Amino acid sequence: MRKLIILGTGNLAYHLYEAVLPLENWEVVQVYNHRSESLSDFQETTAVTTDLGELVDANLILCCLKDDLIETYFEKLTDKKCLIAHTSGAKKIQKTRGRTGVFYPLQSFSKYKMMDYTQIPFCIEAKRSDDLKILEDLALSISESVYRISSKKRLQMHLAAVFVNNFSNYMFKLGQDLCIENHIDEEILIPLIQETFEKLKDLKAVEAQTGPAIRQDKKTIDNHLKLLKDQPKHEIYKLISKHIQNDYGKKL
Amino acid sequence: MRKLIILGTGNLAYHLYEAVLPLENWEVVQVYNHRSESLSDFQETTAVTTDLGELVDANLILCCLKDDLIETYFEKLTDKKCLIAHTSGAKKIQKTRGRTGVFYPLQSFSKYKMMDYTQIPFCIEAKRSDDLKILEDLALSISESVYRISSKKRLQMHLAAVFVNNFSNYMFKLGQDLCIENHIDEEILIPLIQETFEKLKDLKAVEAQTGPAIRQDKKTIDNHLKLLKDQPKHEIYKLISKHIQNDYGKKL
Repeated sequence: MRKLIILGTGNLAYHLYEAVLPLENWEVVQVYNHRSESLSDFQETTAVTTDLGELVDANLILCCLKDDLIETYFEKLTDKKCLIAHTSGAKKIQKTRGRTGVFYPLQSFSKYKMMDYTQIPFCIEAKRSDDLKILEDLALSISESVYRISSKKRLQMHLAAVFVNNFSNYMFKLGQDLCIENHIDEEILIPLIQETFEKLKDLKAVEAQTGPAIRQDKKTIDNHLKLLKDQPKHEIYKLISKHIQNDYGKKL
Repeated sequence: MRKLIILGTGNLAYHLYEAVLPLENWEVVQVYNHRSESLSDFQETTAVTTDLGELVDANLILCCLKDDLIETYFEKLTDKKCLIAHTSGAKKIQKTRGRTGVFYPLQSFSKYKMMDYTQIPFCIEAKRSDDLKILEDLALSISESVYRISSKKRLQMHLAAVFVNNFSNYMFKLGQDLCIENHIDEEILIPLIQETFEKLKDLKAVEAQTGPAIRQDKKTIDNHLKLLKDQPKHEIYKLISKHIQNDYGKKL
C-alpha cells in the first residue's frame, strides 16, 4: 500500500481524495491545510494537520494548492525525501529539489459533484524515471487515460482547456444574457447548446462549424453587428466572426 | 388533415418533412426545389415539383430556402391565397402580402442525423391571429416547446444562437487546434468539453464560469498570451479575457 499526503482542501484536493479512497494500492495518510476549518470534510476518515512540521512518511506528496503558492511550499518541504508533485496545468515542473513531478488532471472540478474519475485524462511528468512510475501507478489506478506530457506541452494544453472550457462557457453566458436583456426565457437555448455538444461526439469541431461567418454571409454579420448595441458583445462578435471568416476562407 | 407544402430540400426542410411525416393532423402534400436532383429524398413518398406554377392547394407553404431567396419567393407566390411562412431566424416577417408568418425552429440541423423533434423550441409569428393559430397547431403537433415571438425578439435570439452554437464551437476548434499544433491527441479534451456541458444542466452559464480571467489572475493570463504565438488565437484570448475580467469585476 503506497502512502499519499494531500496538501490543500479545494475542489481538486477533494476529488483526488475521493478518487483514492476506494483504491487498494494507494491510501491517503494525511491531508494538510493551514486553516483547520477547511479540514472538516476529511478529518473523520483521515489524519489531518495544519502544521507542515507534522507531515508523516509517505511515497508521494500532492500539492493541490493555488498556483502562486507552489514555489513557496516546495521550498518549505526541502527536507522531505519523498516525491512531491504539483497538480497545476499552468506551472512548470519545479526544479528546486531532486524528486519533483506534476500530476495534472485535465478537468474542471466542482465540489461535491459526483464524477467518473476513470475518464479523466491525467498528464504526468517527473524529473526521475522511477518517480514517473510512481505517478503513473497512481494515475492508472484512478483513470484509464494517462499521458506522459512535458511541461512545455502541458502549458499549451492548459491554454487549450481555457478555450474549450472557460471561453466556450462565456459564449453560452453571452447568449443567455441576450435572452435576458430581451425578456426571453433563456431556457429556450438549452436544446441548441445540447446539440452543439452532441455533434462533437461524431465530428471534430473544425467540421461542425456552422453559422454566418463560415458561410461568408456578410449581410447577416452586418445586421447582427447593427443589432448589438452592447459594446463588449459587439467587439467579441466582430473579432470571432473575422477569424472564422479568415480561418475557413483560406481553406476554400 | 391540414396540408403543407415545403419549399426547399436543405437540412431544415429535410427535418421538418421527417417531423411532419408521422403526424395525423398534418400532411406534406408537396415538396418543391428548382433542381430535380435535390428532390430524390422526397419523391418516393411525396409529390414533388420543380415548377412553382404546379403548386397544389395547401393550408400552409413553408419556405425553407436560403435567407437571400426569401423575398424573391414570397413575390413569386403573390397569387397564392394560403398562409406562407419562412423559417429563418435572421429575416423579419414578410410584409409583401397579407397572410405571412414565421416558423423558426431554434436548433442546428445536420442532414440524416436523428433528432428528438419534441424538444425543439419553435418560434412562431404571423400577421393575422388566425394564421398564428395555424402555425401554433403545426408547432405544437411537433414539439412541446412553442413560443410566440416578435420579429424583433427573434432576431436577438438568432444572435444568441450564434454565440451559444457557432462561437462556442469555434472555441472548441481553437482548443483542438492547439493540441494538434503541439502534437497532442485532441481527444484528450473530450472529457473537459463534456463536463463544460454537464455543468449547464445544474447551473446558469454565468454561475459556471471559471478560469484565469474570472479569478483576475493576470499572471496566468500574461503567461498564456506569451505562449500564444498565433496572432488570431492571441487576439481572441486577449479580448475575451478582458471582457470576462470587466464583466465579473463589476460584480465583485
